[in-house]
Amino acid sequence: MTPDLPAVQDIAQPELAARLQHQLDNKTKPLGALGHLERLAQRIGLILGSESPILRQPQLVVFAGDHGLAARGVSAYPSDVTWQMVENFLSGGAAVSVLARQHGIDLTIVDCGVRHDFAPRPGLLMRKVAHGTADALDGPAMSPAQRDQALDHGATLLQGLPGNVLLLGEMGIGNTSAASLLMSRLTGLDIVDCTGAGTGLDAQAVQRKIGILREVLNLHREATDPLSALAALGGFEIATMVGAALQAAAERRVIVVDGFIASAAVLVASALRPAVLQRCVFAHRSGERGHALMLAHLKAEPLLDLGLRLGEGSGAALAWPLLQSACAILREMASFESAGVARQSTVETLVH
Amino acid sequence: MTPDLPAVQDIAQPELAARLQHQLDNKTKPLGALGHLERLAQRIGLILGSESPILRQPQLVVFAGDHGLAARGVSAYPSDVTWQMVENFLSGGAAVSVLARQHGIDLTIVDCGVRHDFAPRPGLLMRKVAHGTADALDGPAMSPAQRDQALDHGATLLQGLPGNVLLLGEMGIGNTSAASLLMSRLTGLDIVDCTGAGTGLDAQAVQRKIGILREVLNLHREATDPLSALAALGGFEIATMVGAALQAAAERRVIVVDGFIASAAVLVASALRPAVLQRCVFAHRSGERGHALMLAHLKAEPLLDLGLRLGEGSGAALAWPLLQSACAILREMASFESAGVARQSTVETLVH
Repeated sequence: MTPDLPAVQDIAQPELAARLQHQLDNKTKPLGALGHLERLAQRIGLILGSESPILRQPQLVVFAGDHGLAARGVSAYPSDVTWQMVENFLSGGAAVSVLARQHGIDLTIVDCGVRHDFAPRPGLLMRKVAHGTADALDGPAMSPAQRDQALDHGATLLQGLPGNVLLLGEMGIGNTSAASLLMSRLTGLDIVDCTGAGTGLDAQAVQRKIGILREVLNLHREATDPLSALAALGGFEIATMVGAALQAAAERRVIVVDGFIASAAVLVASALRPAVLQRCVFAHRSGERGHALMLAHLKAEPLLDLGLRLGEGSGAALAWPLLQSACAILREMASFESAGVARQSTVETLVH
Repeated sequence: MTPDLPAVQDIAQPELAARLQHQLDNKTKPLGALGHLERLAQRIGLILGSESPILRQPQLVVFAGDHGLAARGVSAYPSDVTWQMVENFLSGGAAVSVLARQHGIDLTIVDCGVRHDFAPRPGLLMRKVAHGTADALDGPAMSPAQRDQALDHGATLLQGLPGNVLLLGEMGIGNTSAASLLMSRLTGLDIVDCTGAGTGLDAQAVQRKIGILREVLNLHREATDPLSALAALGGFEIATMVGAALQAAAERRVIVVDGFIASAAVLVASALRPAVLQRCVFAHRSGERGHALMLAHLKAEPLLDLGLRLGEGSGAALAWPLLQSACAILREMASFESAGVARQSTVETLVH
């Protein structure tokens, strides 16, 4: 049984790519002198299908959920921190709240499966599948029906959001474990290379975590395809994020991928629909062990490398002004012709 | 003879540093999870002497000048591009114009020694020492009197600017050569390790450039102290930038250092007044060969690494929102206590 996933078309557009490159090469700067910013401008232009792309009403969505596996001590924080941080997001005191406010990014929190009942209020979407996933060391983290519900939640909530940019954020005590499990299963890399300190385990606790995750992978060794792995390993916030990313890709929104957990969701989404990656901008290389390898696997070139390991979408929000800069460069910079600036000399001119 | 340089006090403040760290450690995030952004918040707090620093009226100053050495073919562009780009800055079409506008940063262009006579207009300061430096392969790039005039120009123009942040930018065909020369002379590194493609020389032209620069260093082998090296090797825009950086440091402004040439100016300034470095935020690691080594020499940790090699202050402008984020984190993020979020579990709790 396969759920009804959005179709994601290939958006390679050689002619538009050539026009974007021509435009960038004619701006008043040495060829390629804006480095990664030029590749970013190319990518956004191709996603939005425009030589003068405009980013509209960016939406940062924080997908929140709890993990049965957290009871095994795979995180340095108790599960209650998930709902407490959701309250913190909503009252404006979390890092992502501060950064979204700084940049005028709309912030939405989604309860995908937190072990807590929230009072409804603005900025909080209730899309709870259950009060946390089951313990993946006892059985699948979720049933196929729960997984499909979460995927559908992600797709439909995205349809209700305005704008053409989705910034992915997440919160869930224990979710670096789920991300490491998905990474190991879908990339074939050993769990040791996929597992880090999360919110701050010491070396001994990381070793315990690796042992537990290895047992989980062994228990679910039959769950090899992306959808089976997602159900077996969790979590609800990751599955909802996968659904949202697929829908955003289908709508040709720019997807700004935050850190390790958001990248794991994109890994799953791209295993299902490879063209999702054409819509992604990777915000940063996180300090979490495994993220650098995951980015390499996705052939992603992150914008920032600041040793962040917070999640929440904080890295996506920090990278956001660079996306705006890339578009501003395309739209507002003068060309050599329009500015009356001389072009690069030939070698013959130089040696005279 | 030594010119009248501003005094720059040591601003190490162990108590304030401890209070800033305590504040950061109590924000609702795992310890150190905001990585480099936390170190940036520390630095800005120490520069501005505040636990809740506020950046006011950032000033991006583009120091422009021409270089006699450019006639030797050390750049891929003709000297006329310097004044043409100044016109482009002023009419708003250059990369730095676009980025300064995006971020609401005031932009000032200073004619420190361009080989062209500009019509006066808003946004352009006339501080011309001469129509370009002399050819450093024939003799000193400038006289000691010219150098001191440029240093004084930098200090006095800075005094006339509002705000508490200076972002350093520059324009000058041939000025990667001057920066490489200063770097080699003041760090003791071989000129090969200090020399790159600048605006886009091919490999053969870079070899020619290195040969010329080696000759220049040999001619001026007696110019070993920072001020003598500055006069011998140039240029006017670098000397003016040194004066501005010293004055900004004396006034405890935050100095946002752009790429290779701005870093060379800071290298000279810090050789004269080591405490200048306490006020510096290094915006990015540029694609220009030599910059990574220069940053290592200055023990600088750049914020961005985007392969930029444009100058103008474009990298400083791109990094600017990160400085604002660092301050917003300090001022606006909730603490564990204020948000009612549980702290990290003890190892004992974890293994239960």
